[in-house]
Amino acid sequence: MKDFPGTPGTFTGLFLRISQFLFAAGAIASMATADGFTNYTAFCYLIASMGLQVIWCLGLAFLDAYALSKKKLLRNPILVSLFVVGDWVTATLSLAAACSSAGIVVLYDRDLGYCKLLGCRKFQISVFLAFMSWLLIEISSLIMFWLLAAG
Amino acid sequence: MKDFPGTPGTFTGLFLRISQFLFAAGAIASMATADGFTNYTAFCYLIASMGLQVIWCLGLAFLDAYALSKKKLLRNPILVSLFVVGDWVTATLSLAAACSSAGIVVLYDRDLGYCKLLGCRKFQISVFLAFMSWLLIEISSLIMFWLLAAG
Repeated sequence: MKDFPGTPGTFTGLFLRISQFLFAAGAIASMATADGFTNYTAFCYLIASMGLQVIWCLGLAFLDAYALSKKKLLRNPILVSLFVVGDWVTATLSLAAACSSAGIVVLYDRDLGYCKLLGCRKFQISVFLAFMSWLLIEISSLIMFWLLAAG
Repeated sequence: MKDFPGTPGTFTGLFLRISQFLFAAGAIASMATADGFTNYTAFCYLIASMGLQVIWCLGLAFLDAYALSKKKLLRNPILVSLFVVGDWVTATLSLAAACSSAGIVVLYDRDLGYCKLLGCRKFQISVFLAFMSWLLIEISSLIMFWLLAAG
């Protein structure tokens, strides 16, 4: 397996995982403190999906930190297969959650103009952070898939 | 490059492209015949995204059919790179469009109960077809990426 930035057990890999964790945690915090988010299925789904991402990224960040401290590279094909599946599922769920929430925010903000009355700032911030988190986990996902395929 | 189902220039590849085209065209038809879809940004975006997918899949279906008729396998790395980027972009846009529209349909159907008054059947069918189309192009996308990475 080739060695390039973002592979598990490297500093860039650890940096990617911590960034994903921070953005996902930020998205949850912003959504959970917004008024009336429980009335919307999509916003609850965003919290669930970002919650899954927080657990996944934190777990992998610890694994990366452990590998770095022991100076090991995590290149076992079974382990990489697990990372590929996990990253792909988490990335797909994150994008789905971010987009379904973004659909509602755009509906309320642009199409119906409710945001002037209700205030959607926290929903918008949460959706933005969820998109950032997705972007980073998508990068990780593509790196893992490449690692697995390139053998 | 290894030979497995779904690679460009094979019958399964052609079948995948035609299925993606049909589902995307069905999603457009169902959305375009629904009343008042132009009032919703997400629904207009669904049509635009599925329109892009229709053009992309139809082009690749013709290319696959041509390769099959000439008994050629399309394995040029530059061509496969182009397929990877195109499939990845189309798949991501399709999922984003399907999810943002699904967010609004779920909001109207489950959260607000407007669907009993307005009728959302065509929106629901369109979103379902868009998801099916995304699922198939995601499969193509993963196959292409694997082909490129495995060299």
